[in-house]
Amino acid sequence: MPTSSLRINAPRLLANLECLSRIGKLPDGGICRLALSDEDKLARDQLVTWMDESGLDIRIDQVGNIFGVRAGLSNLSPVMLGSHIDSVIGAGDFDGCYGVLAALEVINILNENGIVTKNPIAVASFSNEEGVRYQPGMLGSSVYSGALDISNALNIVGVDGSIYGGELERIGYAGKMRSGDIRPGVYVELHVEQGPLLDRERIPIGVVDGVVGISWWEVTVSGGANHAGTTPVEMRRDAGLAAAKLVQKTREIALKVGGDQRSTCGMIRFFPNAINVIPGKVILTVDLRNSGEAGLAAAEDLLLTSSREIEASDDVSIAIKLLEKVPAVKFDKDVVSSLEKISGALGIRSRRMISGAGHDAQLMARICPTAMIFIPSKGGVSHSPEEFSSPEALTDGGNVLLHSLLVFAGVVDGDQRF
Amino acid sequence: MPTSSLRINAPRLLANLECLSRIGKLPDGGICRLALSDEDKLARDQLVTWMDESGLDIRIDQVGNIFGVRAGLSNLSPVMLGSHIDSVIGAGDFDGCYGVLAALEVINILNENGIVTKNPIAVASFSNEEGVRYQPGMLGSSVYSGALDISNALNIVGVDGSIYGGELERIGYAGKMRSGDIRPGVYVELHVEQGPLLDRERIPIGVVDGVVGISWWEVTVSGGANHAGTTPVEMRRDAGLAAAKLVQKTREIALKVGGDQRSTCGMIRFFPNAINVIPGKVILTVDLRNSGEAGLAAAEDLLLTSSREIEASDDVSIAIKLLEKVPAVKFDKDVVSSLEKISGALGIRSRRMISGAGHDAQLMARICPTAMIFIPSKGGVSHSPEEFSSPEALTDGGNVLLHSLLVFAGVVDGDQRF
Repeated sequence: MPTSSLRINAPRLLANLECLSRIGKLPDGGICRLALSDEDKLARDQLVTWMDESGLDIRIDQVGNIFGVRAGLSNLSPVMLGSHIDSVIGAGDFDGCYGVLAALEVINILNENGIVTKNPIAVASFSNEEGVRYQPGMLGSSVYSGALDISNALNIVGVDGSIYGGELERIGYAGKMRSGDIRPGVYVELHVEQGPLLDRERIPIGVVDGVVGISWWEVTVSGGANHAGTTPVEMRRDAGLAAAKLVQKTREIALKVGGDQRSTCGMIRFFPNAINVIPGKVILTVDLRNSGEAGLAAAEDLLLTSSREIEASDDVSIAIKLLEKVPAVKFDKDVVSSLEKISGALGIRSRRMISGAGHDAQLMARICPTAMIFIPSKGGVSHSPEEFSSPEALTDGGNVLLHSLLVFAGVVDGDQRF
Repeated sequence: MPTSSLRINAPRLLANLECLSRIGKLPDGGICRLALSDEDKLARDQLVTWMDESGLDIRIDQVGNIFGVRAGLSNLSPVMLGSHIDSVIGAGDFDGCYGVLAALEVINILNENGIVTKNPIAVASFSNEEGVRYQPGMLGSSVYSGALDISNALNIVGVDGSIYGGELERIGYAGKMRSGDIRPGVYVELHVEQGPLLDRERIPIGVVDGVVGISWWEVTVSGGANHAGTTPVEMRRDAGLAAAKLVQKTREIALKVGGDQRSTCGMIRFFPNAINVIPGKVILTVDLRNSGEAGLAAAEDLLLTSSREIEASDDVSIAIKLLEKVPAVKFDKDVVSSLEKISGALGIRSRRMISGAGHDAQLMARICPTAMIFIPSKGGVSHSPEEFSSPEALTDGGNVLLHSLLVFAGVVDGDQRF
């Protein structure tokens, strides 16, 4: 059988996803598998068992990333496929797990068909991608790619007061391998979109050529708390009203900058937050994202300008603090273009797109040619028990990943050469 | 000495206020003397001691209101002067206490000058005015005036799970007197303004001819929670943005209705309230107040209309629930006019005004001719340790109260007849 005819065993992939989803299942159906928790340990143990059954050489690095390595004909740089298996609170079945288990499925297909590749292959499961328990997220891939020092990572204090390094020891995943030691020649991450574009346009594959830059702000509006019943309009310094104007400006920023600019106020808190008291202080957050540096900078400028305008019009003071900034990432042109061709050769429609969410791939892009494959998320919903991708979509993505591996690791049929 | 020359003993009044303010003092300087707490009991004990020292006949009613009665020459209806001594969390020294202790000071002046009045006099301290621990507020005066049934009041469950009637027994203030049994011929309440008008206009006395009507609303905006990084503007159903528009409309309501209309959004809560999630749901409150029924109704209409408009423009649904409605109260014209004349005769400038806050007087107005006297609150601040009224203002108010009592209880000099 020519390798071009190979397809993943979709029922097996779906069964494995279903099996993993049972670890950390909440009563309401969502999953809670926070990094380095007991549930994360159980999921890691299951993954390692499967890797072992698939004949992979298992290696754990110092930050707790798990790798299953399959030897190649050569000692060339390995092709790495992966994602993560930790979750947010109330997650769906596919975020992260899909990329890891589809990579494992690809290995199983190679094994069953007696295929040996030129390059070695590594299946990767990165530690603490979600960043719910330990911040920052994408911790494992940050250390792996050299963006974060291992000793700093091990000392991070979690939201529950635990220490990353201590919990890693506790669950038995403090490995000996130096992070970064398996240096891939190419990294491909398969993931659910977590956005609505593919679902809305009914396109089965997104070839992701970059990740947006993110700029997170905390805005504190200070006015004057006073009695709601006695204070006339002209004497009010209403921090709630000023904040409401800024929330509206936040939307206008997205419209003014245009393109793929996103701009969101997701958190707000009034002080004292009483029905009969004019808010004296408000704290809110603004999440700005853009695939282009200039666009993101323009959005940041608009946020500052709007704040100054509202300070003047509403007699309040506004303090703005940058919480986090992650620059936009462009993926490797050749890898992106190959993924498009592979999808086309399989007869699966694709479109190029930017990821609006952060992924381990954006860190791996620092050390090797990288790109991502997205499949549709129903309604764009993610980080929710309502997250859903159809079996057909999951199968298409798995097959694109399989054939990417065949190409990048050096198994190329005569009829399928890129 | 003609009674027209009588003045309160200001240092004694200030000393008593200072003494009472020490009961329940918080480390930050504010007072916490929630109704029926241990601190409230201590303050009641102190008040009863003072009343006793002033020779008053102390009577406690079933809801815990405290009355100190001074006999008159006749058995005509007593003149009642009073307010409350419970407090919010972090209160100032004067809210409530001023009206009660100034009434006690008036009694002391009568005693010291051997004055006997035609009508009896009652100093009243109403229970649970603030409504922080047990809702509704103005509980004691509501029962006293027949607006609330005593058995319903005794069964109210507090925010701490305690039962009003049980706590009243515990602190020893479950009295035998039937609420309403001392039926006053007139009720006068002296209070700090808790608003900025007198302070801003530098007028020492406000003669209060009514209390605004209050209409409290809970508004729930339902949109769609989604990923802040991946969801384009045209696919957003941002409940936070829609809520922000409603907060702005809330201000516009005050401007459109005009007059003394107040309109405030004091509380808001985003769900899920995460930096990178578009709010799917928002709950906020709106506090509407107006001295006129038509104005308040117009404001309510505008709130409903605005909500319908935002539902349409922002593709969200908005549910509106009335939490509480208290109709506006007009005080007695003759009492109001007398208070103005009394103030004028003392050479103290006054202005008529509406109270934007609720007071026991608005309940007492149901059963007898009633009005209030306000003194300036610095910057209009109240329900805060920053609450402040000057010794001069406190003295002026006390003297207007003294001479009101002389008039209403039937001690009138030849040169001061109204």
